[in-house]
Amino acid sequence: MAKKNKVIRPKARVPRGLRDVRAHEVRAMEYMLGQIRQVYDSYGFEPLETSAFEYSDALGKFLPDDDRPNEGVFSFQDDDDQWVSLRYDLTAPLARFVAENYDGLPKPFRRYQTGPVWRNEKPGPGRFRQFMQFDADTVGAPAPVADAEIAMMAADCLDRLGIARGQYIVRVNNRKILDGVLEKIGIFGNDPEVELQRLTVLRAIDKLDRLGPDGVRQLLRAGRKDVTGDFTKGAGLNDEAAQRILTFTEVTGSNRLNVLANLNDVVGDSSTGQEGIAERAGMHELLEAAGFEDDQIAFDTSVVRGLGYYTGPVMEAELTFETEGEEGGVGRFGSVGGGGRYDGLVQRFKGIEIPATGFSIGVSRLYTALEHLGALSTQETAAPVIVLVMDRDRLADYQRMTTQLRQAEIRAELYVGASGMRAQMKYADRRGAPCVVIVGEDEFAAGTATVKDLVEGAELSQHIEDNVEWRSGRPAQQTVSRDGLVACVKEIVSRHRAK
Amino acid sequence: MAKKNKVIRPKARVPRGLRDVRAHEVRAMEYMLGQIRQVYDSYGFEPLETSAFEYSDALGKFLPDDDRPNEGVFSFQDDDDQWVSLRYDLTAPLARFVAENYDGLPKPFRRYQTGPVWRNEKPGPGRFRQFMQFDADTVGAPAPVADAEIAMMAADCLDRLGIARGQYIVRVNNRKILDGVLEKIGIFGNDPEVELQRLTVLRAIDKLDRLGPDGVRQLLRAGRKDVTGDFTKGAGLNDEAAQRILTFTEVTGSNRLNVLANLNDVVGDSSTGQEGIAERAGMHELLEAAGFEDDQIAFDTSVVRGLGYYTGPVMEAELTFETEGEEGGVGRFGSVGGGGRYDGLVQRFKGIEIPATGFSIGVSRLYTALEHLGALSTQETAAPVIVLVMDRDRLADYQRMTTQLRQAEIRAELYVGASGMRAQMKYADRRGAPCVVIVGEDEFAAGTATVKDLVEGAELSQHIEDNVEWRSGRPAQQTVSRDGLVACVKEIVSRHRAK
Repeated sequence: MAKKNKVIRPKARVPRGLRDVRAHEVRAMEYMLGQIRQVYDSYGFEPLETSAFEYSDALGKFLPDDDRPNEGVFSFQDDDDQWVSLRYDLTAPLARFVAENYDGLPKPFRRYQTGPVWRNEKPGPGRFRQFMQFDADTVGAPAPVADAEIAMMAADCLDRLGIARGQYIVRVNNRKILDGVLEKIGIFGNDPEVELQRLTVLRAIDKLDRLGPDGVRQLLRAGRKDVTGDFTKGAGLNDEAAQRILTFTEVTGSNRLNVLANLNDVVGDSSTGQEGIAERAGMHELLEAAGFEDDQIAFDTSVVRGLGYYTGPVMEAELTFETEGEEGGVGRFGSVGGGGRYDGLVQRFKGIEIPATGFSIGVSRLYTALEHLGALSTQETAAPVIVLVMDRDRLADYQRMTTQLRQAEIRAELYVGASGMRAQMKYADRRGAPCVVIVGEDEFAAGTATVKDLVEGAELSQHIEDNVEWRSGRPAQQTVSRDGLVACVKEIVSRHRAK
Repeated sequence: MAKKNKVIRPKARVPRGLRDVRAHEVRAMEYMLGQIRQVYDSYGFEPLETSAFEYSDALGKFLPDDDRPNEGVFSFQDDDDQWVSLRYDLTAPLARFVAENYDGLPKPFRRYQTGPVWRNEKPGPGRFRQFMQFDADTVGAPAPVADAEIAMMAADCLDRLGIARGQYIVRVNNRKILDGVLEKIGIFGNDPEVELQRLTVLRAIDKLDRLGPDGVRQLLRAGRKDVTGDFTKGAGLNDEAAQRILTFTEVTGSNRLNVLANLNDVVGDSSTGQEGIAERAGMHELLEAAGFEDDQIAFDTSVVRGLGYYTGPVMEAELTFETEGEEGGVGRFGSVGGGGRYDGLVQRFKGIEIPATGFSIGVSRLYTALEHLGALSTQETAAPVIVLVMDRDRLADYQRMTTQLRQAEIRAELYVGASGMRAQMKYADRRGAPCVVIVGEDEFAAGTATVKDLVEGAELSQHIEDNVEWRSGRPAQQTVSRDGLVACVKEIVSRHRAK
């Protein structure tokens, strides 16, 4: 038998590591971003939007090489053969924007920006190649006033989103204090080898939560073998130096005098260290003046933030409630954002150092947390009321009723499909409609309309076993005059909304 | 003299054809999108967000070839060597989404989506490579109910955005009526040559606004030479056929009986044409039932929409107020969106025809129109009040005042820079601050605060010529007790806001 020519059809599938966002999440996200925006607005920050891609050389860090440009970022050539890359964060575009427009900007320049960023990395469960960030940064202001403000906003955002006191904490540290400690044990200067050692120390401390003090000690000394047998080379410190750093990471708590005294002990006469302590004290004074308490924003020497480029205060927002971890165990929900001071922001463009400090909220992660807490559920748009089409010759009448409902600010839709009554009821169920409007031959003759309450109907159906009784009783259904239709629907919608 | 090694710095510049969106526009856009969203919500549509890029084969139409993939779209390969492309509209991703999730969707499926799209085209003045669209589509519903609803929403959006009656019009036509006319003059069937001729006719009619009937007649017949001498090949119709089409395009106005009679004349017994007339009559009946009038949504046979893929009702939203045209002349503002029925939406994926109809608002274009009308200006967020730093040892006190203002829901910021009084005043001016709070040595001693009204100050300074008088009079400035600070600032802010 001769086969017909086979038509080759593309397979409809979302690209690997990407996802579609459905109605519920779009709405909840919109609400969430709006709340964060309001906090930043109230502090006098202004929004900015940069484009999805930048010239790869301006984006920096991941400069494409000729053959394999996609190292961590998505890159392509425009028709001038210039390499462009999708932004991998919102800080690099800010640096480009500030460098390009520096003279015309108010100084300090304070902006917020939200939007998707893209990473060309291996996707995994909960790990996507496109995700949302929400950043706020201040450019052109020294520590500690601007940094204190950034920390306040982070705490205010979590508070505004309905996360209870005690369930979140913004942990603050200062890189200069750590630098003071490192100076005391002989790690300082710009030598590349020293830089690497310094970064290794930072990364080790960053793992304190996961590995505990003993694991971190191994990483500070010769190195550590993990459960799979893989060996991570350490920073090569001696036991005394490693202990000094571990002691430092234990200085947690507020800025009370005894803490400061401890810090003075570990930092000694290092001028960098002393600067860090002064900045920290300054931040604390401002936070206190603004009414923030230690259970909202707290000093914690174990916060380092792995990235090399921070130069002063660093901070991390953490949600402290317990949740199921990835491996099934129970643990704190963890970080939903972080930031700090990075005074090299536009240096690569302009050659001058312009101080900057900022914070980035991991919007998708925070969304997961709010879903978990049920903090988003009350913000949903009510499902629409459906006006069913019983008689296709009366479409104009159904349209009129739908418009009347809508004019009364009831979310309402005319069923626009071509299917019969059964499919229409199924559709109304799928949409989660609070009620449907049914006007058939009898109702048209009598000038009435029947309204069926689907929520109440579903509840009642759980208690009625007799199908005949059900049908004859027509529960959760009422027939009203056409003039009374809007009032009747309104009553049902607001009754269910209030629940 | 030996030169120092030159450091090569990247130039900070936004990629060609892209742009940064500043605070004013971000806020106005947010307001605008919110209004449109509310209209679509009220009709029972649900939001959807797809990702920025799709597999190129699923995106269709611009399938990349091996060497030069970027024909009209931005394409690149992911690490599996699959081609992906940035979306060039929001319809192609909808087709992919519907085909991928068809069985699980409510039917009809009605969604809206907004976001940036990207075109790899030559940029020009007002022509960008990233721009915003806002689409609403109904999948799985036949004409004309769903189409009438789409037209209503387009009109409601313009209305909601404050465009006055008479300044906008949604013009509606039906491709089937035109097909009936073409059938009568012998253009029908699926032959590629006929398809091309048909498309040439559509494109000719689409230029009626710009070229007038005589220019279009040339394009319907042998062809047309433009002012630069370039020749565009025509559809090759004879004079009678061209006249028949031109007569058809003159049938403008509402659905009154005489118009329908005219249509019957030109369409004759073509069943496709008659179907189109019936759909048009059906739409009109629904629009009338919903209270829309001819000055909002009108039948207009000159609307064709150039694209080949429309299969039924087509529509275009136009702003009719006069504005300066590109060449300096005065003309109507023109189209801000368009759409129609395209029943081949998911056919390329699934091989079955699923009817769809939708509308796409050109958000950036509409934004320009609203700016022109001044319809966005009242929506601005008030500029913040600035608390100046007169004494750096008193930062905590300034922070306290700032927090108090903010707690009273006044947008307020503490000056976070390091500069002196002069630069701070300049900063406050740049930010457009309604007033600044000044607390120096005298005020601290007396427990007071000075509030300087910058708006009033600027007005007064136009009338005072004597610099000495100005300084001694300290106009637009008042000193109040610290307890009275919030009330004083609040009064100034609301006074200027009301203007």
